[in-house]
Amino acid sequence: YTAYSGKKLITVLGKKIVAVGRNYVKHAEELKNPVPELPLIFLKPTSSIITEGKKSVIEIPDKVEVHHEVELGVVIGKAGRDISEDRAMNHVAGYVVALDLTGRNLQSDAKAKGLPWTVSKGFDTFCPISKYINAEKIDPHNVTLWCKVDGQMRQQGSTSHMIFRIPRLISYISGIMKLEQGDLILTGTPEGVGPLLPGQTIEAGLSLSNSEKSLIEMKYQAVQKPGGMWRTTPY
Amino acid sequence: YTAYSGKKLITVLGKKIVAVGRNYVKHAEELKNPVPELPLIFLKPTSSIITEGKKSVIEIPDKVEVHHEVELGVVIGKAGRDISEDRAMNHVAGYVVALDLTGRNLQSDAKAKGLPWTVSKGFDTFCPISKYINAEKIDPHNVTLWCKVDGQMRQQGSTSHMIFRIPRLISYISGIMKLEQGDLILTGTPEGVGPLLPGQTIEAGLSLSNSEKSLIEMKYQAVQKPGGMWRTTPY
Ligand SMILES: [Mg+2]
Ligand SMILES: [Mg+2]
Ligand SMILES: [Mg+2]
Repeated sequence: YTAYSGKKLITVLGKKIVAVGRNYVKHAEELKNPVPELPLIFLKPTSSIITEGKKSVIEIPDKVEVHHEVELGVVIGKAGRDISEDRAMNHVAGYVVALDLTGRNLQSDAKAKGLPWTVSKGFDTFCPISKYINAEKIDPHNVTLWCKVDGQMRQQGSTSHMIFRIPRLISYISGIMKLEQGDLILTGTPEGVGPLLPGQTIEAGLSLSNSEKSLIEMKYQAVQKPGGMWRTTPY
Repeated sequence: YTAYSGKKLITVLGKKIVAVGRNYVKHAEELKNPVPELPLIFLKPTSSIITEGKKSVIEIPDKVEVHHEVELGVVIGKAGRDISEDRAMNHVAGYVVALDLTGRNLQSDAKAKGLPWTVSKGFDTFCPISKYINAEKIDPHNVTLWCKVDGQMRQQGSTSHMIFRIPRLISYISGIMKLEQGDLILTGTPEGVGPLLPGQTIEAGLSLSNSEKSLIEMKYQAVQKPGGMWRTTPY
């Protein structure tokens, strides 16, 4: 379980992606959202995951304003429910860098109407992930996440600024829904989210706090989603 | 793939449950919701599925007002994306009766705050399902769904009243997120939703429109969720 990476990771990824919203104060503020008192969670479908490879592109659907959100992803190695905070890190197999791509206009509309965030978060290719990092390789609360679009730095923030740290997230989530081996938790994005357009290149990575060099990097091309049945008009 | 049932179904259920809200006019009205112009979709985690068996109980978490919603579940047999309406039924392997259990107070609170519905829909045991029905056994748009609590009929409605029928749902959903073998689509609930309390027994089933007798039935006991880490207060 500790040896896989890239393509292989897909096959061991479990049945769900639990994503955490507003887990960095400055990101909550930039979208004019209140800072939550409890973790704010939502689901992304695992069908939205892509890994690097020749054919891997990010598809931007028609009329969707896609925003990048770079996040630390936690891969669950051991199943559990009602996991206590002090035992939570035993359930972590490792980490990935992930982009929680978000149709911001769809999400804003859903929020205004009290509707689920599912469509805005769930399109195919909306969860690009990096190669896998073994748990013992990093202190997950002391790395820098970064994201560039067309070579320009857009996001750069330390995971030390998470509001709810990984043990709390695991404890909270597993008190609601059991975690299974291969499940992925996206731990929220630092500030600096912004648009990703067809034709642009996005890079994201993770570096140790004492280093200029990235421990892991990934790069994806964004294209217009071809054809497709995605409907924006009523039947 | 056509022979499995009960426990076996779990192992072939795919990576997601896509649920449809407000797909029956009278149910939209009973919760004072507008009738949607496009299908309203959200995700439930597959970890919420339970099948009948000695140890299978529905757990009612502390401070959560759980409502029953009986629904026709569509099991996807063939993967696809951007599936056209006229080819959609080729992707259906069969059906289950499902309860889309919902923490109504949590959902109302989420709706008022523009937050995801995930917690209200995602607790462990919140998706009890029946044995599997092969696709050719029923006309899915002409069966009666029913649900009883402690022997009293609570819901009884024909799937002929769906606003968006199965081909449209499959086409719409697969234009956003690809469908995979074993994925489950919950097609919405007819009117009559109401509370399910610890200690109560819930039964649900499906009958052909010309028959008094159920083609399939299921029965679950509701209990108070034991202990658990489910938090309702801030850290
Ligand atoms: Mg949701
Ligand atoms: Mg995010
Ligand atoms: Mg429902």
